[in-house]
Amino acid sequence: MNSFQETRDQTSKWNVSCSQRAKNTFNPIRNFVQNMAVKPNPEKSPIRLSVGDPTEFGNLVIPRQAVNQLSENILSGKYNGYTMSFGTLEARKAIADYFSSRECPIQPQDVLLTCGTAGAIELILSAIGDEGKVLLVPKPGFPLFQTIASSLGMKTKSYRLKQEDNWQVDLTDLASQVDVDTVAIIVNNPSNPCGSVYTKQHLQDILNVAEKCKVPIIADEVYANMCFDGIPFYSVASQSRNVPVISLGSISKLFAAPGWRLGWLIVHDRHHILLNAGVVQCLHQLTMRMLVPSSPIQSVVPTLFSEPCRKEQSLIIEQLEHNANTAYPLLKNIPGLRCTKPQGALYMFIHLDLNILSFENDVEFTESLWKEESVFVIPGSCFGWNGAVRIVLNAPGPIITEACHRIQSFCERHLCLA
Amino acid sequence: MNSFQETRDQTSKWNVSCSQRAKNTFNPIRNFVQNMAVKPNPEKSPIRLSVGDPTEFGNLVIPRQAVNQLSENILSGKYNGYTMSFGTLEARKAIADYFSSRECPIQPQDVLLTCGTAGAIELILSAIGDEGKVLLVPKPGFPLFQTIASSLGMKTKSYRLKQEDNWQVDLTDLASQVDVDTVAIIVNNPSNPCGSVYTKQHLQDILNVAEKCKVPIIADEVYANMCFDGIPFYSVASQSRNVPVISLGSISKLFAAPGWRLGWLIVHDRHHILLNAGVVQCLHQLTMRMLVPSSPIQSVVPTLFSEPCRKEQSLIIEQLEHNANTAYPLLKNIPGLRCTKPQGALYMFIHLDLNILSFENDVEFTESLWKEESVFVIPGSCFGWNGAVRIVLNAPGPIITEACHRIQSFCERHLCLA
Ligand SMILES: Cc1ncc(COP(=O)(O)O)c(C=O)c1O
Ligand SMILES: Cc1ncc(COP(=O)(O)O)c(C=O)c1O
Repeated sequence: MNSFQETRDQTSKWNVSCSQRAKNTFNPIRNFVQNMAVKPNPEKSPIRLSVGDPTEFGNLVIPRQAVNQLSENILSGKYNGYTMSFGTLEARKAIADYFSSRECPIQPQDVLLTCGTAGAIELILSAIGDEGKVLLVPKPGFPLFQTIASSLGMKTKSYRLKQEDNWQVDLTDLASQVDVDTVAIIVNNPSNPCGSVYTKQHLQDILNVAEKCKVPIIADEVYANMCFDGIPFYSVASQSRNVPVISLGSISKLFAAPGWRLGWLIVHDRHHILLNAGVVQCLHQLTMRMLVPSSPIQSVVPTLFSEPCRKEQSLIIEQLEHNANTAYPLLKNIPGLRCTKPQGALYMFIHLDLNILSFENDVEFTESLWKEESVFVIPGSCFGWNGAVRIVLNAPGPIITEACHRIQSFCERHLCLA
Repeated sequence: MNSFQETRDQTSKWNVSCSQRAKNTFNPIRNFVQNMAVKPNPEKSPIRLSVGDPTEFGNLVIPRQAVNQLSENILSGKYNGYTMSFGTLEARKAIADYFSSRECPIQPQDVLLTCGTAGAIELILSAIGDEGKVLLVPKPGFPLFQTIASSLGMKTKSYRLKQEDNWQVDLTDLASQVDVDTVAIIVNNPSNPCGSVYTKQHLQDILNVAEKCKVPIIADEVYANMCFDGIPFYSVASQSRNVPVISLGSISKLFAAPGWRLGWLIVHDRHHILLNAGVVQCLHQLTMRMLVPSSPIQSVVPTLFSEPCRKEQSLIIEQLEHNANTAYPLLKNIPGLRCTKPQGALYMFIHLDLNILSFENDVEFTESLWKEESVFVIPGSCFGWNGAVRIVLNAPGPIITEACHRIQSFCERHLCLA
């Protein structure tokens, strides 16, 4: 018995508490969706434009050849063992090849496989973010960055996106936020929830800030190539000459396979800044926790990125583009709403003019819309931006149209005629 | 520009460093296996008894019905979306039913799905282990507990298992290690690397220590039910009246599916100690990081735990039992080796008498064995126990026999005739 135990007796309390980090871990979208108490209008069929899940309505599907190949691989019994902790060479090579370009070549050893983009965020933050370090995140932005940073005891500070300027980064604000504790800047392009796509020039402007402040960029490019109306996609890494970039992605949206939980992290480190600081080695050591995607799913990555599947993938993007082009004209003139035309990703982010709509805030708007019109959207406050809502563009065209009409009559009914 | 940036210039260094936690994250088994520089003997076929992967040799296979069902589920296109962050109800119910007993009922809501047992370890430690907290781990023991604890900034202290006593816990040593920073005791039964299975009485003795010290138990039961020669398996939770128990497991070994990366965490909390302390809520919040197993794999869990698959599962255990009964008599009388008969799990842990074998340590023994006999084992030091090696019992019988013969001639050749 040591002195600690001598002081324990029947009346002592259990040595049980939760970590402060876990207590601070919070995902507002999941929390909102899972705890919605309001019931929809029983007379209207529910339309859930809430979770960014491309499979929700059955119209966006994984390329058939990949599905067949996966089924075959399962039956072959060859892909059931542990893989390397950072993924098989074949899968990493397929990803490296897909994202490589002349100005930005990628080798398989630059790629690590993860449990979705979520796992990639967790991996890179674990590698660079000691307790108390600061991550810069966009506002409005996808809240998972905060969720995971908090679970690691890190802090987040947000930099502003300019609604008035097609949701581009407020560069002055970004620069002003950096300090000695800043370990990285998150850039999410194409953006959830904004649906914006950055130009080459804008990416270079962001990179200039990062280079001046000497802070690396984590590029969440889970919506890479998902752009509409001929707008080109440029990766952050393709525009960087000196800034180390960690780019993250997954098959969740690109191939409509969020449940497959396969993502990646790509290290772009032209000047060996991350390598010399030990970050690359840390990433590899952390993969040895074995939180790797499942082997059968890994086995089908080369098929997913092959020519026939890429063709089918473009059908997904065409449908989303069609939906953006359907929703925007229907919503843009509704009194009380102000929206920007989506340029990419899966979303439209809509500003609510609460001076002329009779709601206190975006949560009240969302709950009433669900209750009266059975349309489920997510309040902007879940993305750190009050007075807005996000809709997902994943439904078939006629359902998108129906949702827009319901939103229109809802807004018209709730105008304050002051 | 803020004051931080004014001090930055072209010559400033990049704000890049790795987290102390990541630097401390280390998995000695993976590291040993992936960095083995010694080459095997080209004249002898390599026999890798190193990684605890039941699929390594092709003789242990996932129950056929589950494989067929998974392939069907993939083709159906119904299991591609995000699931609840802690797994589908169907999968959790199948697991709850399988592990429930009269004295220890389990509800689906007590079960959370994770990315293998590894993910379950990561989840529970994230929930209870703030930076600086201490986890008690067995020695010898599976090193992943330390790997993951370090990645969270936690410390580990080890308690001794008694080789002379069939690798049971040294209860005095265990009790003496607990102090105010201790957040949990890891109990791994059946044991990797020891191959031991604890009796009911021994589990109760361990629980008594935990109850006295008021520290919860994390039971790593990834080898649950994998016992030989009629030895019964008792879960820690089934023997606990007052001690909160978190039990962890996966389909990796039980169903020979380590690459599928599906595990679970079961909360046994009869007196709501974990619930009232907020741990259950923290676990749920942490799952919202979305490091959940893949949806198609989740969809097949009910099939895996159904009657026909459980029958096939017993074939896996019979083969392992057969291998234990083959290897033990062949190894026990080899001069320089001392071993305990495996009672369960996948392993045999062999003490090396370095007074009569001409090796400095277990790493040298392992490297020479690989070089001369092409048999790959893992040095005990990877499990925190110098002067031993672990062999995996996953190979077909004749290969196990061949490996034992090679080990015999190896040892005979390397006896010091002092
Ligand atoms: C910007 C962004 N990053 C990451 C994720 C997580 O995606 P995954 O399913 O790949 O983990 C999402 C999902 O909606 C997202 O929108
Ligand atoms: C005791 C123990 N716990 C956990 C694990 C990890 O297993 P999983 O594949 O379920 O993550 C292993 C794997 O060997 C193990 O032996």
